[in-house]
Formats: sequence, structure tokens, C-alpha cells
Amino acid sequence: MMSSRSAATARSQSASLRRRGPVLERAILDAALEQLSTVGWNGLTMEGVAAGAQTGKAAVYRRWPSKEDLVADALLAGLPPFDEAADHGSIREDLYQLCRSVRDAMFSQPGFALRAVLHECDPASAERFQELINSNFIEPSNRLLGQVVDRGIQRGDVRPDATGELVLQVIPALMMFRTKVCGSEWEDGEIAEMIDQILVPLLRPPTAR
Amino acid sequence: MMSSRSAATARSQSASLRRRGPVLERAILDAALEQLSTVGWNGLTMEGVAAGAQTGKAAVYRRWPSKEDLVADALLAGLPPFDEAADHGSIREDLYQLCRSVRDAMFSQPGFALRAVLHECDPASAERFQELINSNFIEPSNRLLGQVVDRGIQRGDVRPDATGELVLQVIPALMMFRTKVCGSEWEDGEIAEMIDQILVPLLRPPTAR
Repeated sequence: MMSSRSAATARSQSASLRRRGPVLERAILDAALEQLSTVGWNGLTMEGVAAGAQTGKAAVYRRWPSKEDLVADALLAGLPPFDEAADHGSIREDLYQLCRSVRDAMFSQPGFALRAVLHECDPASAERFQELINSNFIEPSNRLLGQVVDRGIQRGDVRPDATGELVLQVIPALMMFRTKVCGSEWEDGEIAEMIDQILVPLLRPPTAR
Repeated sequence: MMSSRSAATARSQSASLRRRGPVLERAILDAALEQLSTVGWNGLTMEGVAAGAQTGKAAVYRRWPSKEDLVADALLAGLPPFDEAADHGSIREDLYQLCRSVRDAMFSQPGFALRAVLHECDPASAERFQELINSNFIEPSNRLLGQVVDRGIQRGDVRPDATGELVLQVIPALMMFRTKVCGSEWEDGEIAEMIDQILVPLLRPPTAR
């Protein structure tokens, strides 16, 4: 006779076998992220991910031919999309909210996993994951930053000549520097200080003084 | 019978044996830097340094009990002192000249050697060399940066509220970011752009607009 616990497990496993398409894929990607967080890139196996997602190894290999493909998709699925920076009415608030989104992504489970993978994997895989960071995180967030500054110029709370590469690099540079050198975790208050003490004075037009 | 070449070598070696104190020490430190540049931290030996300085191993060990001590002193002796930032009459020129000095140190032979050593040596030595960088390069250059900004406030070409940690981190942050991410080697023109596009607008007082 089955205990109620075994029966529940059996029901759950039976249910898992009926998962299809996006639901099963999501379960596999979640299991891959979970494995990255616990055993890291080197410890992660397709078998372990399949077990974590309560499915078979074939279901994993059918969708992702290699561990590298699976991990890349798992990281991508976990990172937030950077496709829009809402208009909050002022350059100060727009930059503050954008920096908070960037910080949230950096300190999310996929964000930590991505940095850990970069340190562990071989150079060829590292190049692929660095490219993934560039095209899905750095470039989109820089594009949004440029949009926010352009909107400020049109709105009138950013000086018209605050264009160019260097202006847009001040935030990512300070975020990299303080994360690495000061061990900063970018609490909201620290983001606000960076915007108020550096970006607002740097960007404001003469008439706003 | 000695060839003229052997005779010259013998004279040179005989001369080298008469070197004393600071002259011999300088020759040993130069030989250590030279070894770091050619065979790296792992390849450097006390014997090799002694040979490079045309002296005996005992003369090296008498002054530096370990390879780590010798390399630390060689790097220190090669880096320029950061003890003064001359007054060039404007915040723009003061910052420009200070950044050029920092760039020159970063791209000097000891600067390259120091970064190479950090990558090669074991964690305990790395900690010592990182501390050497902090106390002999990063802290002094940051102190000078603070002095230059304070002088600008007194002179009147820097706004009085441009104080605080974050303002002083903009230059080191941009230098770290563009060196790592853009592979920048900080030509003079790029330093001038950073000062003119970022620091001068960030620091200037309202009346200067």
C-alpha cells in the first residue's frame, strides 16, 4: 500500500510527464539555473538538470545539444529584458529607475550565475558568455541610457551638448569601479547619491543653475 | 692571450665588483625589473637577477631575503612618486597633467610588470602586491586628485559643493572602465576629452556657465 506521501510524489511525477512545450522548457531552464547556483558550471550535467526538472535526459538533449547551449538559454531566460525605459518625468527619476533595473539584474540569481560561469568555464565558452552579456545586457542598457539622456535634452533638463560616448560611460564606469573596488552592492540610497552628486550636475543645462 | 673582447668583459666585471651601496642596489633592482619583463614572476630567480646585475647571489640575498621582497622594492623604485600636483592655474590643466602622470605610471615598465606579477603570483604574494599598489599608487594619486579639486574650489573654478567620495571616483572609474572594456591606452587626446566633456562640466560653478 502506498503512503500518502509516495502517492503525492507519484501524482506529481505523473503530472510532470504530461508537461509539454513551454512549460517543460521553463522547468528545464529553471533546473539549469538552480544547478548553476548550487554546483556551478563544472558540476552541472545534463543528467542533473533532467533530474532537477523531473524529466528524462532525452527531453533535455532534444532541445539543447550541449551544456553550453542550455546554460546560455537558462541565463537569457532569467535576465530581465532591457527594451524600454519608462518616462518618469525627469532625468533624475529616469536615471534612478534605470540604474535600479540594472542593479536588480546584476544581483539576480542569473546575474550571479553568469559571473560564476565566466570564471569557471574554458576560454571558448567564456567568449560566448561574454558576448551574451554584451548583446543582452550591456548594449541594451547602454541604449536605454542614451534614450533617457536624449529624452532629457528634448525635455530640457539635460544640456544639449551632453552627447557622446564618454557621458554615457560615467554610470557603467562608476558601477564597475565601486562594485570591484569598494564591494558596493548598490543599495537604492547609493544609486540616488550617484545620480544626485554626479549625473544631475554633469547633465543639467546652464539655466537650471 | 686574451682577446680584446674578453679583456673588455674582464674590465667591466672587475669594475662591477667595486660598485657599492646605492649604485649596486640600483643595478640589482634594474636587473629584477628586466627579469620581470622578460621571464615574468615565475621565471625570475635570485641567481638570474644577480647574473643580470653582474654581481653574486650573496650580494642580492644580503639586501633582500626573498624574491618577493626584491620584486616589491624593484617595482616601488621604478614607479614615480605621487607626492605633489603642481598648480597649473586652472582645474582643467591641473586634472589634465595629473591624469597624464597616472597614465605614464600605468604604462611604464614597472606598471606593466606589476600587473603581470599580480596575475602570476600566489594569493599571499598577490595580497602584498595589491597592498603595494594601493598604498603607493592608488591612495597617493587619489589624495592628489582631492588636493587639485580643493584648490579649484579655493581658486573659484570648481563649485564649492563638489566634495565627497563619488566626485573623486569619476576619473579612476572611467580610467578603469575604458582600459578594461575599450582597451584604451589613454593617449593625451583621450585624457583631454575626459577632462573637457566630463570633469569640467561636472565641477564648474554656476557662474562659469
